Amino acid sequence: MDAPLRALAEVLANAGRSVLIEEETATNTGVDELPVATIEGIGKQADLVIVMGGDGTMLGAARQLAPYNIPLIGINHGRLGFITDIPLQNALQAIQSVLDGHFTLESRTLLEASVVRDGQTLTTALALNDVVLNRSGRSGMIEISVELDDQFMYKQRSDGLIIATPTGSTAYALSANGPILHPGVNAFLLVPVAPQTLSNRPIVIPTSGTLKLTLTEIGRAEMGASVHFDMQTWSNLQLGDQITVKKAQHQIQFLHPEGLSFFSTLRKKLHWNIMPES
Amino acid sequence: MDAPLRALAEVLANAGRSVLIEEETATNTGVDELPVATIEGIGKQADLVIVMGGDGTMLGAARQLAPYNIPLIGINHGRLGFITDIPLQNALQAIQSVLDGHFTLESRTLLEASVVRDGQTLTTALALNDVVLNRSGRSGMIEISVELDDQFMYKQRSDGLIIATPTGSTAYALSANGPILHPGVNAFLLVPVAPQTLSNRPIVIPTSGTLKLTLTEIGRAEMGASVHFDMQTWSNLQLGDQITVKKAQHQIQFLHPEGLSFFSTLRKKLHWNIMPES
Amino acid sequence: MDAPLRALAEVLANAGRSVLIEEETATNTGVDELPVATIEGIGKQADLVIVMGGDGTMLGAARQLAPYNIPLIGINHGRLGFITDIPLQNALQAIQSVLDGHFTLESRTLLEASVVRDGQTLTTALALNDVVLNRSGRSGMIEISVELDDQFMYKQRSDGLIIATPTGSTAYALSANGPILHPGVNAFLLVPVAPQTLSNRPIVIPTSGTLKLTLTEIGRAEMGASVHFDMQTWSNLQLGDQITVKKAQHQIQFLHPEGLSFFSTLRKKLHWNIMPES
Amino acid sequence: MDAPLRALAEVLANAGRSVLIEEETATNTGVDELPVATIEGIGKQADLVIVMGGDGTMLGAARQLAPYNIPLIGINHGRLGFITDIPLQNALQAIQSVLDGHFTLESRTLLEASVVRDGQTLTTALALNDVVLNRSGRSGMIEISVELDDQFMYKQRSDGLIIATPTGSTAYALSANGPILHPGVNAFLLVPVAPQTLSNRPIVIPTSGTLKLTLTEIGRAEMGASVHFDMQTWSNLQLGDQITVKKAQHQIQFLHPEGLSFFSTLRKKLHWNIMPES
Repeated sequence: MDAPLRALAEVLANAGRSVLIEEETATNTGVDELPVATIEGIGKQADLVIVMGGDGTMLGAARQLAPYNIPLIGINHGRLGFITDIPLQNALQAIQSVLDGHFTLESRTLLEASVVRDGQTLTTALALNDVVLNRSGRSGMIEISVELDDQFMYKQRSDGLIIATPTGSTAYALSANGPILHPGVNAFLLVPVAPQTLSNRPIVIPTSGTLKLTLTEIGRAEMGASVHFDMQTWSNLQLGDQITVKKAQHQIQFLHPEGLSFFSTLRKKLHWNIMPES
Repeated sequence: MDAPLRALAEVLANAGRSVLIEEETATNTGVDELPVATIEGIGKQADLVIVMGGDGTMLGAARQLAPYNIPLIGINHGRLGFITDIPLQNALQAIQSVLDGHFTLESRTLLEASVVRDGQTLTTALALNDVVLNRSGRSGMIEISVELDDQFMYKQRSDGLIIATPTGSTAYALSANGPILHPGVNAFLLVPVAPQTLSNRPIVIPTSGTLKLTLTEIGRAEMGASVHFDMQTWSNLQLGDQITVKKAQHQIQFLHPEGLSFFSTLRKKLHWNIMPES
Repeated sequence: MDAPLRALAEVLANAGRSVLIEEETATNTGVDELPVATIEGIGKQADLVIVMGGDGTMLGAARQLAPYNIPLIGINHGRLGFITDIPLQNALQAIQSVLDGHFTLESRTLLEASVVRDGQTLTTALALNDVVLNRSGRSGMIEISVELDDQFMYKQRSDGLIIATPTGSTAYALSANGPILHPGVNAFLLVPVAPQTLSNRPIVIPTSGTLKLTLTEIGRAEMGASVHFDMQTWSNLQLGDQITVKKAQHQIQFLHPEGLSFFSTLRKKLHWNIMPES
Repeated sequence: MDAPLRALAEVLANAGRSVLIEEETATNTGVDELPVATIEGIGKQADLVIVMGGDGTMLGAARQLAPYNIPLIGINHGRLGFITDIPLQNALQAIQSVLDGHFTLESRTLLEASVVRDGQTLTTALALNDVVLNRSGRSGMIEISVELDDQFMYKQRSDGLIIATPTGSTAYALSANGPILHPGVNAFLLVPVAPQTLSNRPIVIPTSGTLKLTLTEIGRAEMGASVHFDMQTWSNLQLGDQITVKKAQHQIQFLHPEGLSFFSTLRKKLHWNIMPES
């Protein structure tokens, strides 16, 4: 991955921009001719962050950089991602085009979730895609009681419950039969995974409220439950633990080259353009 | 239905309020001692409109009264409705409580849809629940091309396509496997009915844009397609017709007695409180 | 279509086989050098019927030829079908291979359905894919009461109900969210279309019983309901009409060149081989 | 639980039948006046086995007694079960009625599954409901390649895959959006849990074949995958392990009092009788 990084740095330097490289990336790729910085350092100094990798890399960068209010741009060196939507082979032209001022800026909401036990907050984390509460275990179901702004919504026995942002609606929530939320919709999404109550359906709620999930049953003793903030796992949940989920204070800005459409990404990734033959 | 109407009029009169009765209702029920007015007259003069009936009656009243910006309250004399949420037996206390100032006010968005052929608008109508484009016919599928703000979303072959408000998300859209949208979410919902493309999913979009549905195939010649604005039908669609759908200029205000919760109505109507036994 | 027909006739003649052409096909294509026969004539005389067309053509031929116990083979000149699984460009080699004895024979069950009013049978028809009872109308739902061997199953309000064979499980029933039934499964499938009861699910039942569907509500007066036997429609259903559905007396035999697999057709048509990128 | 057991024993004794009590049950309940026997002893000597408990107890008894070809009858002392369909309060009359010869006998198929690594069978077990292969872990998905009789079906990335009997179709498979299989259908059911490929659907296959599931990816290193035979878990699966699943040699016989219907249990447990109000 050193060649594309160097080519990209050259485009930026030619445009008169200073370039910092994240320290771990510098070590891993051997690109040692650029000044290195920590993620935090980048957050404090940079005007734009370019992330090369897959959607997972972008999720991590977005969470860490959320407090710094810098736009991110995603270049995908593997398969086309929902949030890393510039393929590597188009990267140089795309970045040049952005430097020339042809781009759109898009805000994405993050979730902030905490695990609370006996009134004490055990952990707090951000998620750009989703917060997932599920059985970590082998078999059996968990039971979750869900409240929005202290109003009881429902109790459900299931494999788990996904709280997703519009960004996350095209990730795990989609596999669990959730709807797609356009990034411009100001809402969160609750999707149960394999719910026992057959009339249960995904629900879309405003971002203004606070969700409280209480673990009211965790099945057989030897099992447990976990909560996941994007791909970070906190796995020592106990009966009675509460997970609160609300809109994070900071948003993340994604910067897209002009002409890229959410719907064209959807069509490509979900094969909507290919009608089943009949 | 004359007895409950008279009892209700008495509660209002005792509270020092003037009461108008809609003219057709007066004729049908024989309640002739109250001053009558047309829907429009009520719209111009009244401070509050009380609708007795089912969700269908409420849908009709809401569409007609939308331009007048008066709150509506719904009393259900049949089965509990999603938007007529006061059962008849509680009506007098509920209205008294509202007159005493204990209520919450809720805005609901309406859709405005037009049928356009060769650049000419053939009809325009409002819908509180949904605009449904479907095959009016016997068998076969229709094909619809969908754009949002002139951006192509997808083509789909199906029995039909539902564009729903959050209010309509618990009506027909729910049967067609759509998600539930909380009334506080500022969004519309697209749900296909029996889509041929198996990876198609419901999509939630912002209310700020304009949808354009173009009828690109209507199957065998002898069949046709219809468009429905709530329960009003316009059935002479031809190949190439366009249906534009956007947020209506006016909103409708629903007034609820305090303590009623959207989620408790959901739990009651969808039987979420009854866990399947296993 | 005359060239492929003539090429096919030549392959058969070279193999020492007599060839009959269906009379309407002869007229439509201008292939007038072959002896013509009615479908019934073909049924009585032929050892093998080769159908060129799409799945719809095959459905019609299968229903008409079911009483004669002759194998059918399907050549698709459009898009690959589930039951017409030989693409036109491979037709000559495939037929030659069949003539050389390399084929597998597969039995497919048909449905026999009757409309009964006041104890009188108004019509009876066969279906290879499905019998569909649905609202023929504009809006509103129908209510159907379903019994199997005089045992009450359920009442459902919906857009319609699909009774499918394994063959039909990959047709309309699949769009309505039904499961796929392998052709070797001896069962029928009931799939509701947009059912109001959210806990309703598709059910797979043995072929040994008789289903009775009674139309217990057809919504608003101006509408109606229809029943479809594959693509043939009978549209004058009245409230109280009963549709009985059972296994037809005759089966149809499909003949496949060796090496074709049901699963490979599924993978191709449903794009299972294309993993969504993430 | 000793009182109902003693009452039941009395009914049997009065009818001139010898009664054995399973040894662990005798210890747990303190019913020590009856001759005790192991499950195997009961299997060898008894003409009928009466199981008191929930569906889980019945699943365990059925697996252990399958080789002995004795009918089982299920009395539910908790919530109504799908396979323990006699409520405790009706138990004495129901058993008396059965002793008088009023019953129906029903065969249920079991699955036999083995875990194979490098050609060696590591474990083999029976399942009456289902064999489930899933990620045992925290997050991420597993990838499974599925073959039927050595014919490739599909590869899927998902939370897991359920192979269910008709009996199991109303258990976990139903939560994962599978269809219901009538007990009289001679078939197995494959239902993916949260599959990444959106066009994936449940498939019903004949019982005559052998399924082979190969674990082709297990996500991040620290996680793993498990296989469950009903509620028994085998959790040390490795990449490349194969699970073969086929019809077990023995069937289990359930004995039902006359008049009980599969559909009435379905209606009661899935609340089909309660129409959503609209």
